[in-house]
Amino acid sequence: VARIEVGAGAGAYPVEVGRGLREEIPARLQELSGGAGCLVIADSNTAGLVGAYLAAALRARIHVVPAGERSKSFAELERAVEAALDAGLDRRGVIVAVGGGVVGDLAGVVAATYMRGVRLVHVPTTLLAMVDSAIGGKAAIDVPRAKNLVGAFKPPAVVFVDPDLLRTLPEREYRSGLAEVAKYSMISDEHLFDTLLAEAERVLHRELDLLTTVIERCCAIKAGVVTRDEHEAGERAILNYGHTVGHALEAATGYGPLTHGEAVAVGMTAAAEIGAAAGVTPAVVVERQGALLDALHLPRTAPGVATAGDVLALLAHDKKAAAGQPRWVLIEAVGRATWGHSVPVPVVEAAVAHALEAG
Amino acid sequence: VARIEVGAGAGAYPVEVGRGLREEIPARLQELSGGAGCLVIADSNTAGLVGAYLAAALRARIHVVPAGERSKSFAELERAVEAALDAGLDRRGVIVAVGGGVVGDLAGVVAATYMRGVRLVHVPTTLLAMVDSAIGGKAAIDVPRAKNLVGAFKPPAVVFVDPDLLRTLPEREYRSGLAEVAKYSMISDEHLFDTLLAEAERVLHRELDLLTTVIERCCAIKAGVVTRDEHEAGERAILNYGHTVGHALEAATGYGPLTHGEAVAVGMTAAAEIGAAAGVTPAVVVERQGALLDALHLPRTAPGVATAGDVLALLAHDKKAAAGQPRWVLIEAVGRATWGHSVPVPVVEAAVAHALEAG
Repeated sequence: VARIEVGAGAGAYPVEVGRGLREEIPARLQELSGGAGCLVIADSNTAGLVGAYLAAALRARIHVVPAGERSKSFAELERAVEAALDAGLDRRGVIVAVGGGVVGDLAGVVAATYMRGVRLVHVPTTLLAMVDSAIGGKAAIDVPRAKNLVGAFKPPAVVFVDPDLLRTLPEREYRSGLAEVAKYSMISDEHLFDTLLAEAERVLHRELDLLTTVIERCCAIKAGVVTRDEHEAGERAILNYGHTVGHALEAATGYGPLTHGEAVAVGMTAAAEIGAAAGVTPAVVVERQGALLDALHLPRTAPGVATAGDVLALLAHDKKAAAGQPRWVLIEAVGRATWGHSVPVPVVEAAVAHALEAG
Repeated sequence: VARIEVGAGAGAYPVEVGRGLREEIPARLQELSGGAGCLVIADSNTAGLVGAYLAAALRARIHVVPAGERSKSFAELERAVEAALDAGLDRRGVIVAVGGGVVGDLAGVVAATYMRGVRLVHVPTTLLAMVDSAIGGKAAIDVPRAKNLVGAFKPPAVVFVDPDLLRTLPEREYRSGLAEVAKYSMISDEHLFDTLLAEAERVLHRELDLLTTVIERCCAIKAGVVTRDEHEAGERAILNYGHTVGHALEAATGYGPLTHGEAVAVGMTAAAEIGAAAGVTPAVVVERQGALLDALHLPRTAPGVATAGDVLALLAHDKKAAAGQPRWVLIEAVGRATWGHSVPVPVVEAAVAHALEAG
């Protein structure tokens, strides 16, 4: 089992990555909770899988939320804290999040606020959660008009990543996670990039030993970035590579037609094109990124999913925008990103137009 | 203007106490927010008073919640974050709580969670909020079955206390705050006790210069305790003097017939009787406390408001209970409290029975 430390000082926590780790989790949780109660929070996909197994082994209650982003709501937050109350959880208790990003977010807000804060453990079950959302301590729920509006920084006590849990993940969700994996390689690790490109078929077939190595590497990259820049003052921005256009595409389409990873893959393509036009990203890097996305069966464009006007309007309201223009994360070389770039509006317009055309 | 520091290190903040301070608040808030927006949160009692004045002076929006404990709900939390979104508040924004404990709690949870945390300023308008709830960084909302179940530790950036705002506070709410003032004198300050007893009439008439001195002293006592014991490991328990029976009385009566201060005054009387039976509190101290409560027109008993059985059952479920019995804060001398006392059940039963009889 690999053990990756996130953060420094009192708030530091380990991410443990290892095949079969799920079998150790009950004993580890019992040790952590010291006899105080646990509440397992899972969604309707993960409850029957590892959620019920953990709850039974811990003799803990399991609280099940509907699968999907709509569970990141005040209504589900209130249901979940009522479930914690029913479970008799006190201040020494532990919330165990078993699922993808939605469950991790909701459970994180529960753990941040129940009795003004109890401990949190993540057991991510999607590739996206394993390499991204379970690490970094951000948790939030949505309101109808704004995603992730209400939440907290809630570092977990520990993250348990068992790549074997990916066996049953639906194909499209799995590939959605691969987009983040590809992103990590572009922003920070040329060796990972080469591995992914050379071994794309094995990655797509989920060869679990290979995947374990890839996941460890991605966790280490994210852990390094968030440790060096806990409060998003600078470097953490590079994690947002591909997400500027990606988020706008998701918002413009009402979070329906594209998975997060598909939107990010299209966003990476747009960002590479913008980087090339701005003289930051060499043409060969644009091509290599495109080859990797193709090899991982990820889209480079999203023909017709939205109008360019809608996407551009959303970009002007990007959270990280300044004076109505987003700051861009751009790639200088495979494995090296820089942030804070301003780019002429016509360059962005062209890239967005291409993103919405047939590739 | 007196300036009392709460906490240590990066989380420290000042409580400023001074007559007429409200006139300085707009400029101070403008300086603090540095041009980023503010949202004033007030209740239907305080909105027309200082809330509208501050919002106008700041050209900020004001969000008004219904007066009363029922506003500490998920529904009002969601309404308030929507209001912050409507006001265009970003991460640099400031939430300004103008009101009593309910507004302070709700606004504190908003500030702790909106965009994962924005700054908070308290402008307390009740005596209870000035000397107690605005200091210490606790904020929480209720669910139907449990008060203060969901919240956060959210230290404010600054607390502005203007005693002149007490002029229009309803008499019963004012006296409710005086119970906490009496409590501070019993647990920590014999000189304050002597002042309150000697000057009770002037206190009841709200002589504002005298009141300013009294409020400063209470703020300093609470600031000292919470600074020395930020995470409730020990000493902070003494702030709970009178609250063990007090909270049980409030819960047993559905938070209707007694104000918080009335319940605390009755709880102080019960705790003094328990302390006497346990050999901790000298009889003369019991008498002196009774004389002070009488002088401040606070009740020593609450005849017939609940059954002893209901109150005793709630005591067994007290948050600070161990093995089904609460730990008691008891007075050794006027101005000196100790905590963590276990007391024989019959002693508690007798004190609760007396609390529910005519005095």
